[in-house]
Amino acid sequence: MHELKISTERHTQLLDITAQVREAVRGESGSAVLVYVPHTTAGLTINEHADPMVARDFEMALEKIVPEGWGWQHIEEGEENAPSHPRASLMGPQVLIPLRDGELALGTWQGVFFCEFDGPRTRKIYVTTLS
Amino acid sequence: MHELKISTERHTQLLDITAQVREAVRGESGSAVLVYVPHTTAGLTINEHADPMVARDFEMALEKIVPEGWGWQHIEEGEENAPSHPRASLMGPQVLIPLRDGELALGTWQGVFFCEFDGPRTRKIYVTTLS
Amino acid sequence: MHELKISTERHTQLLDITAQVREAVRGESGSAVLVYVPHTTAGLTINEHADPMVARDFEMALEKIVPEGWGWQHIEEGEENAPSHPRASLMGPQVLIPLRDGELALGTWQGVFFCEFDGPRTRKIYVTTLS
Repeated sequence: MHELKISTERHTQLLDITAQVREAVRGESGSAVLVYVPHTTAGLTINEHADPMVARDFEMALEKIVPEGWGWQHIEEGEENAPSHPRASLMGPQVLIPLRDGELALGTWQGVFFCEFDGPRTRKIYVTTLS
Repeated sequence: MHELKISTERHTQLLDITAQVREAVRGESGSAVLVYVPHTTAGLTINEHADPMVARDFEMALEKIVPEGWGWQHIEEGEENAPSHPRASLMGPQVLIPLRDGELALGTWQGVFFCEFDGPRTRKIYVTTLS
Repeated sequence: MHELKISTERHTQLLDITAQVREAVRGESGSAVLVYVPHTTAGLTINEHADPMVARDFEMALEKIVPEGWGWQHIEEGEENAPSHPRASLMGPQVLIPLRDGELALGTWQGVFFCEFDGPRTRKIYVTTLS
């Protein structure tokens, strides 16, 4: 299992980690690559990374789908991050990408995104090849 | 493949099943553990299980993201569960957790949650180790 | 890795692909089947395929959860598909189904759905057996 470290810069931020994932599994053989986030206010998704505006749209959309003002019960002093938790789970804690000839079988427009919902923070990502 | 049985108590309920999943795969070797729900009005997610209020927040949030009053077409007499279906799919039918030294590589705050959206019911969960 | 080709007929459409997935992995052995979509405006989910109205409800619900009028920044001339991207990610780019005795361990009511959010289009789906 490989462990990547990344830093996020904003409260809600989609970060393209395609290159890091590709580098982590270079030379490995297997059927698929599992990318996993061991955090509860961050997730992962796969979507378009050609136009950076797509990532900005996701940030806006997730904050609207799960808004701040819903009467949240998970309240920690100095850490108001209740909506960050369901936002993370809507994206999901993992993605699984098939390998073809040793390469990530991503589509033409696809990139792997780390989805930060409680940044800025330093975060870990696990990458594992499955056989 | 292991089959777990659980019982839910409320219409919408996140239930922490981390201990059962861990017990099911004890002593097995592999790269990752697949947890799968063979139901259409229940799902799975991974999120914080330290503060039980996080699970309550999820229950409230999913009922707001997909509300009752949307003019649903899936209507069965005596079983009004149309919004339960997309709520389940938003969480997803499976989670996949990497194994490290034979242990679930969950983050410090992470637990595995069964997400009931049409309870109370008796439910099945499949747990499989992938190599 | 198997590659399926399908055609969608509407802008937003859930298409039952259970039979094609089952056919693709017939006779293969392994622990689980990964179904993956290499597109950024389409996803996959597992849900009820007995009543076709469930799929229609999903189409309506995803268009309401992520509506057209949110001030999207991803604007391409002649291709107004910004909300299609987060709709796809809410369903997810992949599903992973355990195998039991060589058969997809789907629940009684479960089917695998391709989720089109920018059709009509011709689309690809990758199917891989994991060991």
